[in-house]
Amino acid sequence: MRVTEPVLRRLAVDLLEAHGAPPEAAWLQADLLIEAELRGLPSHGLQRLPRLLARIGNGLADPVATGEQHWRRAAFLQVDGQRALGPVALMAAMEALLPATRAAGLALAAIRNANHIGMLAYYAEAAASRGVIGIVLSTSEALVHPFGGTEAMLGTNPVAIAIPTGDAPFVLDLASSVVSMGKIHHHALKGEALAPGWAVDAAGNPTTDAEAAKTGAISPFGGAKGYGLGLAFELLVAMLAGSELAPEVRGTLDASHPASKGDLLILIDPGADGGVAARLCAYLDALRHSRPADPASPVAVPGDGMRVRRAAALRDGIDIPDSLLNDLQTLRAA
Amino acid sequence: MRVTEPVLRRLAVDLLEAHGAPPEAAWLQADLLIEAELRGLPSHGLQRLPRLLARIGNGLADPVATGEQHWRRAAFLQVDGQRALGPVALMAAMEALLPATRAAGLALAAIRNANHIGMLAYYAEAAASRGVIGIVLSTSEALVHPFGGTEAMLGTNPVAIAIPTGDAPFVLDLASSVVSMGKIHHHALKGEALAPGWAVDAAGNPTTDAEAAKTGAISPFGGAKGYGLGLAFELLVAMLAGSELAPEVRGTLDASHPASKGDLLILIDPGADGGVAARLCAYLDALRHSRPADPASPVAVPGDGMRVRRAAALRDGIDIPDSLLNDLQTLRAA
Repeated sequence: MRVTEPVLRRLAVDLLEAHGAPPEAAWLQADLLIEAELRGLPSHGLQRLPRLLARIGNGLADPVATGEQHWRRAAFLQVDGQRALGPVALMAAMEALLPATRAAGLALAAIRNANHIGMLAYYAEAAASRGVIGIVLSTSEALVHPFGGTEAMLGTNPVAIAIPTGDAPFVLDLASSVVSMGKIHHHALKGEALAPGWAVDAAGNPTTDAEAAKTGAISPFGGAKGYGLGLAFELLVAMLAGSELAPEVRGTLDASHPASKGDLLILIDPGADGGVAARLCAYLDALRHSRPADPASPVAVPGDGMRVRRAAALRDGIDIPDSLLNDLQTLRAA
Repeated sequence: MRVTEPVLRRLAVDLLEAHGAPPEAAWLQADLLIEAELRGLPSHGLQRLPRLLARIGNGLADPVATGEQHWRRAAFLQVDGQRALGPVALMAAMEALLPATRAAGLALAAIRNANHIGMLAYYAEAAASRGVIGIVLSTSEALVHPFGGTEAMLGTNPVAIAIPTGDAPFVLDLASSVVSMGKIHHHALKGEALAPGWAVDAAGNPTTDAEAAKTGAISPFGGAKGYGLGLAFELLVAMLAGSELAPEVRGTLDASHPASKGDLLILIDPGADGGVAARLCAYLDALRHSRPADPASPVAVPGDGMRVRRAAALRDGIDIPDSLLNDLQTLRAA
């Protein structure tokens, strides 16, 4: 069913408030999920909400907590998330980091024991809208096999980078797996075959069978290089946040374990030179107008497609599966 | 010809000192090139030396300069390289960053107007050997086409990340292109075909002809994701260092232009918790012993192969083309 953005936002806020979230926390968590829907990323949208509400219900997520912040050094903030909602702990850390970023030129928050932070671009963009570069890393359960290996040993380990470049920031957000586990599940649901190279089955054999892949492992993007980057992110987050490594991570995909992954937020103050931002914008435009491989498909800059999808969804509404909408409406009526 | 490491090191140091480099600068620049040779990365080894000496000869590289350092903020060091040798400017910045890193928890140096810094792993490892995480970025001439495009618009934009994990640090060093332009030239020299997907020719058509690729563009690694990361690195370096964007970069592949690329060095103090490093080591070992795709090829961790090659080269000597050795010996005799 197609539903307008304000209706879905109201539904999400109501549910979160009914489960004990203060208005600001409810708005923030709902905004994160709605932004994912608007950008065509339903795997990070409202389908996450029933599980999150269940986690609040059984004490694995605390809708009132904001995380305990401790300055390990002048620009290094250590956060014990204390089971807070992911976006609440992360945005609280960002607000605390901003003065340190202005003073030191850059600052870092390392967060453990917070719930799932969802779509990383949300935070990187929030940083860029405050005039600073935002870099966000997060880890997950073991879902990805190493290059040359066949066992799920790494998280999907996404990274987002946003750079203030004028009107619209440059925004990159990608997982270090070739696809998300959400996409594998989506293919399984629809009975569609996976593309070759996406996954291996439980025995470690390459497979295009989505059902078989669900108990196997997703491949890293970009072969040995993507594996290397995903592994570097895995180590960086675990070392700085003191969170678990992928084989021990729980709690982003279930409603029965505390969330034991980690998150990093790095902010860099680029200084106030408007000339540099204009130069970056001109370069990005030159990229967009450079010769495409397919004349019908102009070269894109990361974030371009997202902005088009978002504008269309704000205008035309968001497609949401009937079953999910029913579940959410039933929860609200309960 | 196979030559022992001390002989090649002496040759490089002598040549640099004869061209005006003080002993410490000559040793550092030579060490960088020799380390690349030891690790089986000749494209970043002694074949770079004749051009560097020519650059010193015509004033494009100043073997005495160390770069002018300016603290933009408490942990943000801006460096005008003043045509210094790349490793001299970068290691001087690292020494300056270390106290700030201890105080702030992390610190950043952004460098422009320095010469080529070569193999990035060298610096990241140097940071790890001092107990801090090292992240290094650098840019280059436009050699890489955007995903979905066909014109060389991005640098090869390498990144290195080293993490102190006990005896041997985790070391990742990769270009955001699928292969280096050095490898393309190597294939052209040997008359070997490129693998499909490596490059396009000047007209923008995919090619396996190495000669045709030399005037075309290399492909980004990992499709849209690798393109996005390479582009993010391009923007980060240009914005923070105030260096040129790829289409305007000169001076890392020629002996006729000032070097106008930029370099970033980020150091992060992980704190003194030895338990975390031991946990990371155990995880890396579990990766190495996880089920391989090919039983004859165990899963590797980035840096493993490099250490094996380095040990062998220290024991057995370094293979160096006769023509290059002759050139260097002729230069020394001059």
